[in-house]
Amino acid sequence: MQHKIYFTPGPSQIFYTVEDHLKSALNEDVMCISHRSANFQAIFAHARAELSKLLNLPEGYDIYFTSSANEVWERIIQNLVEKQSHHFVNGSFSKKFHQFALDYQKSSTATKVEDGGDFKDLSVPDEAELISVTLNETSIGYTFPIEKIKELRAQNPDKLIALDAVSAFPAIPFDLNLVDTAYFSVQKCFGLPAGLGVWIVNQKCHATATNLEAKGHITGSYHSLAQLKAQGDKYQTPETPNILGIYLLGKVAEDMNRRTARQIQNDTSYKAALLYQAISESNSLEPFVESKECRSKTVVVAKVNDGNEAILKSMTEKGWIVGKGYGSYKGDHIRIANFPVHSKEQIEQMADFLTKQ
Amino acid sequence: MQHKIYFTPGPSQIFYTVEDHLKSALNEDVMCISHRSANFQAIFAHARAELSKLLNLPEGYDIYFTSSANEVWERIIQNLVEKQSHHFVNGSFSKKFHQFALDYQKSSTATKVEDGGDFKDLSVPDEAELISVTLNETSIGYTFPIEKIKELRAQNPDKLIALDAVSAFPAIPFDLNLVDTAYFSVQKCFGLPAGLGVWIVNQKCHATATNLEAKGHITGSYHSLAQLKAQGDKYQTPETPNILGIYLLGKVAEDMNRRTARQIQNDTSYKAALLYQAISESNSLEPFVESKECRSKTVVVAKVNDGNEAILKSMTEKGWIVGKGYGSYKGDHIRIANFPVHSKEQIEQMADFLTKQ
Repeated sequence: MQHKIYFTPGPSQIFYTVEDHLKSALNEDVMCISHRSANFQAIFAHARAELSKLLNLPEGYDIYFTSSANEVWERIIQNLVEKQSHHFVNGSFSKKFHQFALDYQKSSTATKVEDGGDFKDLSVPDEAELISVTLNETSIGYTFPIEKIKELRAQNPDKLIALDAVSAFPAIPFDLNLVDTAYFSVQKCFGLPAGLGVWIVNQKCHATATNLEAKGHITGSYHSLAQLKAQGDKYQTPETPNILGIYLLGKVAEDMNRRTARQIQNDTSYKAALLYQAISESNSLEPFVESKECRSKTVVVAKVNDGNEAILKSMTEKGWIVGKGYGSYKGDHIRIANFPVHSKEQIEQMADFLTKQ
Repeated sequence: MQHKIYFTPGPSQIFYTVEDHLKSALNEDVMCISHRSANFQAIFAHARAELSKLLNLPEGYDIYFTSSANEVWERIIQNLVEKQSHHFVNGSFSKKFHQFALDYQKSSTATKVEDGGDFKDLSVPDEAELISVTLNETSIGYTFPIEKIKELRAQNPDKLIALDAVSAFPAIPFDLNLVDTAYFSVQKCFGLPAGLGVWIVNQKCHATATNLEAKGHITGSYHSLAQLKAQGDKYQTPETPNILGIYLLGKVAEDMNRRTARQIQNDTSYKAALLYQAISESNSLEPFVESKECRSKTVVVAKVNDGNEAILKSMTEKGWIVGKGYGSYKGDHIRIANFPVHSKEQIEQMADFLTKQ
């Protein structure tokens, strides 16, 4: 049987260098070393440095490691929101983050639009301390237009803005100065095994967390922002972390820097254009997101006339594992990941196939 | 250079089958598959089944996966303690858990004894809802006697008992019926890469968490016990978890079952006896924990007259990586892990070396 290619929107195909890096990890005893050793500090520092370069991290922004993007949602609510956050909800993941805030008994609000539709109203309640924006809704392939994030930034100079960059970074270019905090998990565009989240915060976030602590709020224990910073300043973590995950992230970020973020982003645009072109030429497919500027470049979602069963079967026969629709769209959508690991050749073959459907 | 052997008390030497299982994981696309796929459910079910067998899990006890034992501390406080827990503190890790409870603004109390000393007073405040016991204090090599846990159980039929089994399971035999919840991380006795915690709970824990939720308490979001159960009942997890970690845990637990828990536990006792015998014969070493029944079999801690610098240097020259003392004992103790991966031959050589010190 031919080997499979995973076009699933995360976990997805692992980056092509991961296997070699796993071998190096074994040779370098990465799975044995103490998280309080100088060896670990070097791994932490390397991952931070390579990510900083790849994401063009602005001065004053820090990088911390958590176990998932889900965990970052929780830590943001605990550390950066006293009473109210406001969430732009256009899909299942942005909705979940809003739910996390409600679970933590915040009076959080949301602007919801129909799935696949665009946000017309960018107003935010005065009381909201933090605004949540999802750059790339993995569930339905919706991209929040960067121009609108700029507008939110300009209109809300005193509020924090949190960016969900899951399945976007580093394939989608973004100026981190536009937000105060951003986060992602590594099993999407980085092509790494799941079990690691990356949390980026600026000094305004640190000040907010310090202020909440001073007011007597519970900010979490080992993964409060203060604890992450106290240890992170020494290139360490509060707990024994996913050391292998941090090592692999540093290595793959280094590989990506060698290719350059710009090249990865240009390739992503080119491959996405091929896929959407093919979908528009197909007789049985159409893009789920109407507005062209809101169509995700990394998670291409198409509606399938008469359901996705037949097309998924044909794809599986070719060795292509493609995502079903998310949630209620399970039987009606296909979701095709267009991540840095997916080569132009693979995407050209996929586009060729889609055109004929 | 000869290859190193890690006798550090976690992370430690990886179990000798891990490298092969990593290769299988690559062949089986474990790092690519969706956490909502049947493949993942099979991995989850396998890990649970093998662990259940290895730990002799009683009827009605469930196993869930978190990112670390630190996370389990937090989830226990959120889900199982309304106002007060009581902590038996004899070392840094039991102390940390007490601190987590205080961070979450509980009125938690503690019985503290001098490091290395034994608990004489087992009384627990009436108001405490949960009692925390650390079976094996990794920081100072102290083992909480099982007879005393039985006494606590008999005297406190209405309270929950939480067992910290980090660096104990599966090398130390334990009847889980004696406690309501237990937890460990995998980078100790299981010899696995760090980044995964295992949380065992019984039905009384589920009932407690349900009751706290009904009362309006915050029980966490994605990793509330209710969410872990809702997904766990389907062999799934709320978030995209450390799939590779769960896979490796299932495989290594299977390997250990082949050897049998009893054999592993017998070997652990034999090897521990060798190490303590050697320490008592040495001129410059003595066991840190006075009471013989309280000396840990898996983390053997010795005081070194005139400091540990010279002995650690000699050990490093032999390729043996041994733990320094924890915290304030950094320069005075050595900590030698005696985990299932450490063979009788390796421990015999270590004992031989220690005798001559």
